[in-house]
Amino acid sequence: MIHITRRERFNAAHRLFRDDFTDEKNMEVFGKCSNPNWHGHNYELYVTVKGEINSETGFLVNLKTLSKVIQSKVIVKLDHKNINLEVDFMKGKLASTENLAVGIWKEIEESVKNIGTNLHCVKVIESENNYVEYFGPA
Amino acid sequence: MIHITRRERFNAAHRLFRDDFTDEKNMEVFGKCSNPNWHGHNYELYVTVKGEINSETGFLVNLKTLSKVIQSKVIVKLDHKNINLEVDFMKGKLASTENLAVGIWKEIEESVKNIGTNLHCVKVIESENNYVEYFGPA
Amino acid sequence: MIHITRRERFNAAHRLFRDDFTDEKNMEVFGKCSNPNWHGHNYELYVTVKGEINSETGFLVNLKTLSKVIQSKVIVKLDHKNINLEVDFMKGKLASTENLAVGIWKEIEESVKNIGTNLHCVKVIESENNYVEYFGPA
Amino acid sequence: MIHITRRERFNAAHRLFRDDFTDEKNMEVFGKCSNPNWHGHNYELYVTVKGEINSETGFLVNLKTLSKVIQSKVIVKLDHKNINLEVDFMKGKLASTENLAVGIWKEIEESVKNIGTNLHCVKVIESENNYVEYFGPA
Amino acid sequence: MIHITRRERFNAAHRLFRDDFTDEKNMEVFGKCSNPNWHGHNYELYVTVKGEINSETGFLVNLKTLSKVIQSKVIVKLDHKNINLEVDFMKGKLASTENLAVGIWKEIEESVKNIGTNLHCVKVIESENNYVEYFGPA
Amino acid sequence: MIHITRRERFNAAHRLFRDDFTDEKNMEVFGKCSNPNWHGHNYELYVTVKGEINSETGFLVNLKTLSKVIQSKVIVKLDHKNINLEVDFMKGKLASTENLAVGIWKEIEESVKNIGTNLHCVKVIESENNYVEYFGPA
Repeated sequence: MIHITRRERFNAAHRLFRDDFTDEKNMEVFGKCSNPNWHGHNYELYVTVKGEINSETGFLVNLKTLSKVIQSKVIVKLDHKNINLEVDFMKGKLASTENLAVGIWKEIEESVKNIGTNLHCVKVIESENNYVEYFGPA
Repeated sequence: MIHITRRERFNAAHRLFRDDFTDEKNMEVFGKCSNPNWHGHNYELYVTVKGEINSETGFLVNLKTLSKVIQSKVIVKLDHKNINLEVDFMKGKLASTENLAVGIWKEIEESVKNIGTNLHCVKVIESENNYVEYFGPA
Repeated sequence: MIHITRRERFNAAHRLFRDDFTDEKNMEVFGKCSNPNWHGHNYELYVTVKGEINSETGFLVNLKTLSKVIQSKVIVKLDHKNINLEVDFMKGKLASTENLAVGIWKEIEESVKNIGTNLHCVKVIESENNYVEYFGPA
Repeated sequence: MIHITRRERFNAAHRLFRDDFTDEKNMEVFGKCSNPNWHGHNYELYVTVKGEINSETGFLVNLKTLSKVIQSKVIVKLDHKNINLEVDFMKGKLASTENLAVGIWKEIEESVKNIGTNLHCVKVIESENNYVEYFGPA
Repeated sequence: MIHITRRERFNAAHRLFRDDFTDEKNMEVFGKCSNPNWHGHNYELYVTVKGEINSETGFLVNLKTLSKVIQSKVIVKLDHKNINLEVDFMKGKLASTENLAVGIWKEIEESVKNIGTNLHCVKVIESENNYVEYFGPA
Repeated sequence: MIHITRRERFNAAHRLFRDDFTDEKNMEVFGKCSNPNWHGHNYELYVTVKGEINSETGFLVNLKTLSKVIQSKVIVKLDHKNINLEVDFMKGKLASTENLAVGIWKEIEESVKNIGTNLHCVKVIESENNYVEYFGPA
């Protein structure tokens, strides 16, 4: 069993808040991350897939193919976007890094299978001090 | 002559655009950076000061004091904010990294002098591929 | 199941040695790390917790709360300290990165539970070439 | 159970291609990585071992000893070499990062056992966007 | 005066040697870098330009335009190539990082002027321990 | 004119304090950095030299030779040492990063000349947030 990981990046705006919370409650729960005028991050996305090495190519999967899946399925939707307002798979969800990692997993899972490998981990780095890893549904 | 540098960080949203450009013109000049719904970055700010070493302390300047100046003068205004909408010293300016570096210089220059040292460079890193350095007015 | 990781940092002095070893034996086993006058490191600590996403907040755990636990339970004891002489939970133990990781785990485990999540990994980076990960007792 | 990781580095040339493919087929499968005149990388190798802490030393394993194993068994063969032409354990194999990770595992596995610990993971970073992890045969 | 820097990357093979040196002399002067079977690096290239901010755009120069210049003038010639055998502007020169930095300067200088700005520095990072900066002819 | 930079590293303990200050005064001026039981850092040292490229070798200076100078003149004295107690060129000086940079300059300046090049800058990184650069006496 071998794991291979591809990094992609996106810059996006977001805000942590709930419509059914008052401004005070939002500030209490989410702090400055709930600023109504948005803030943003340089997100780093690491997608890890696992499987057996293809003896014909020496590859687990061609990384250019994997990169294209990630680009076309999620980066194009996230890069230079507002996560709360513009990202279809985040509609109706809190724009937390946790939900983002789960959302990205669902968006790419099938396409990753279609290129002959298995999704193992979606890691989203929000800042040099914080990151989330999602290993899929139980 | 010795130089000492302090790094601080801020996460902010911004948008590159001109009111007097059409949407098409904004897209042509600024590309996806002109998305009306904003995007954002993890900015890194490096402030370099220069001068002589104080023989009593071995310091050019106490970095805690320098850090407080940077925090109170600019980070508090920028962190988790929208650069276009909420940052007083960027009002009426294009929210480019270049203008941000110049704006930060002006905001901290006098306070840096007041703690007994001289501002040498304001460096703003917008992403791992892009950064700006401003060395002050000619 | 989702994992979230918070990084904190501390700078500390330490020395690797045993009282019951001669100086020669200490030098043989621990090399220059047994210098009686101490040396030190910029340690990086990554704490990973795991659990389910809270649907109300979109968080596994509020990272500010997790950060406060790590700061108050271990960073305050380690930062700018001598690990051999001043850190209560390292008393009587060899000040290796391995023992440090295990010690940190024990110090924060209960508090991490009290904020509603589960400790998964304590990772301590001693230098760009060396790090230790502890996943808890068997 | 504790894990400890040692990083070593090597700079090498390689080429991805198959003798039994035409040039066109090689270019189609491997892209610019099949350039007949070679290209190269600054590879980073992370070797993770696992086991119990030795109560006499506070170490899982002495990292200097582990470093010597990695240096003598693989770095000396890889550093400033051509992976396709000069590395005995890669003879007859496609010089992919996947095969490199598996090859390094086989080269060091026994020596790691001989210094009293167990190999857990061989991670090879080829670029800031790509890396492979191998956890051993099933 | 403001400086702006764009990073681009390339992976290449090279060898340090002189035709008019014996193998022994090459080994003595260039060490393992003179391996006849080549070795390689992940090079990082930082191009810094300087000038005044354009008040219409807030830019010193549009970084996408600068990136295209660097890509089309040098990266396309260097990436996944053999610096000794395939790079026209390095023909007949020792493939040192110093000569590479000077060569890149000459390749891009005029194009940088044509996009309305001035080349200030070409920095080439060969490894995490070594880099070269060229500020142009005296 | 070309600049070339070599990085070396050292781990050391130190303490900021003055004998003629009371403990309270030391704490007031130097904060936790004055802890009598020491603390420490992973220091990074960047030495930049400048000059003309040697047309015979393509080098400004052989980096292995430069590395040996830095290792033998300063790293051997600093690595795994106590800067206050054990480093001859820091005796009687406050162990600040500023004084360290100046001290390193003086230790290596002549040897750098003897290998046929000129010292341009000594940069000492104390932490990811702080660094000092010294460009020599006026």
